[in-house]
Amino acid sequence: MASGWFYLSCLVLGSLGSMCILFTVYWMQYWRGGFTWDGSIYMFNWHPVLMVAGMVVFYGGASLVYRLPQSWVGPKLPWKLLHAALHLMAFILTVVGLVAVFTFHNHGRIANLYTLHSWLGITTVFLFACQWFLGFAVFLLPWASMWLRSLLKPIHVFFGAAILSLSIASVISGINEKLFFSLKNGTRPYSSLPSEAVFANSTGMLVVAFGLLVLYILLASSWKRPEPGILTDRQPLLHDGE
Amino acid sequence: MASGWFYLSCLVLGSLGSMCILFTVYWMQYWRGGFTWDGSIYMFNWHPVLMVAGMVVFYGGASLVYRLPQSWVGPKLPWKLLHAALHLMAFILTVVGLVAVFTFHNHGRIANLYTLHSWLGITTVFLFACQWFLGFAVFLLPWASMWLRSLLKPIHVFFGAAILSLSIASVISGINEKLFFSLKNGTRPYSSLPSEAVFANSTGMLVVAFGLLVLYILLASSWKRPEPGILTDRQPLLHDGE
Repeated sequence: MASGWFYLSCLVLGSLGSMCILFTVYWMQYWRGGFTWDGSIYMFNWHPVLMVAGMVVFYGGASLVYRLPQSWVGPKLPWKLLHAALHLMAFILTVVGLVAVFTFHNHGRIANLYTLHSWLGITTVFLFACQWFLGFAVFLLPWASMWLRSLLKPIHVFFGAAILSLSIASVISGINEKLFFSLKNGTRPYSSLPSEAVFANSTGMLVVAFGLLVLYILLASSWKRPEPGILTDRQPLLHDGE
Repeated sequence: MASGWFYLSCLVLGSLGSMCILFTVYWMQYWRGGFTWDGSIYMFNWHPVLMVAGMVVFYGGASLVYRLPQSWVGPKLPWKLLHAALHLMAFILTVVGLVAVFTFHNHGRIANLYTLHSWLGITTVFLFACQWFLGFAVFLLPWASMWLRSLLKPIHVFFGAAILSLSIASVISGINEKLFFSLKNGTRPYSSLPSEAVFANSTGMLVVAFGLLVLYILLASSWKRPEPGILTDRQPLLHDGE
């Protein structure tokens, strides 16, 4: 029964995550002229898509690996590798998303990193990089003691959730400012809520819904890997520790 | 020692929270002409101050009541009353902050609720209202069974943290859009990072730092009230339940 609820949540999560990416692609394709990789405004259009895909959807999915009941039994190492690999994919998407906006700015002689959106966004990506490298060094490489791992695990879990929260704040402020930029010279301003504004605002609210569901499954659900030492009859006696 | 760290965190939290409010007041007073209550742009200036004070600083402080070691022993009821009363104060500040912006818009015939900032902000305030009334009905009024309380407690704790995260996203997008509005006709645009932009961006980053510290103490620290049933030698045998 609990497992049924878990898979239902996964289904909702997968649908919401796909919708977040598809809505952002549709916004950029239908209203903002689509995608190129040439330093133009159409190169910028990769930025929202890749940040939503990388920092929210892939990141959110990657953070939930240990909530899969299959990960609760047997050796933990393959799940750690999956967790690290999915987060690495999320990070690569994020970096390409940053390249898109910096190249567009530099090509059009637009200042970089002046908005609060950009200050928060770049801080969030920096924290993500630190989190990934620290996680890799301490939880994947074999040198760290159990003591160090159990000391750092709650901090790793907390920052995992905190970085997702900051990503959501960055995405919301980014969508908001993009609409101010895009609609200021249009026939219908942002304040008259043209269809683009309704669509992009709704995309932002979808990102919030996806983020909250990830955080709920991550922090508040009972779908957690049992702590080491609590052996079930399905769990082998040998496992690779924390 | 643990208690020493807790009070140090409280000191940092108090300082950060005060700075969040004072910085917002200074921004509005020094660069935006100060405060009135007459439907003008100076009435709008109450909005950022009251939302930061209500939805972030008072809300954050109120959510940490059960992390005070004094709350861990003896009857829980006075601490519940304090938790509810502080959140009510936060909610009143928030409502007055909303009145400020709606009155300014209506007075100047500016559209309400068209930005993503406003969609997320109003959703967050609505969730806060639901959270407060549900918390009051279930955890303060005496009718609810222990079973219902323990069922709803993790949801109450999760939404407590989630609402704070959404408040931070709302504040970040709000500061960002206010700077676009305020600096578009100035001698130095936002993109040239005039002193107002640096100051307001920094205020946003302070709000993020405050929010993260609250969430850390709330979710990841070991400063939690022991679960009922785990009696210490200082805890009386009779207490008012969950």
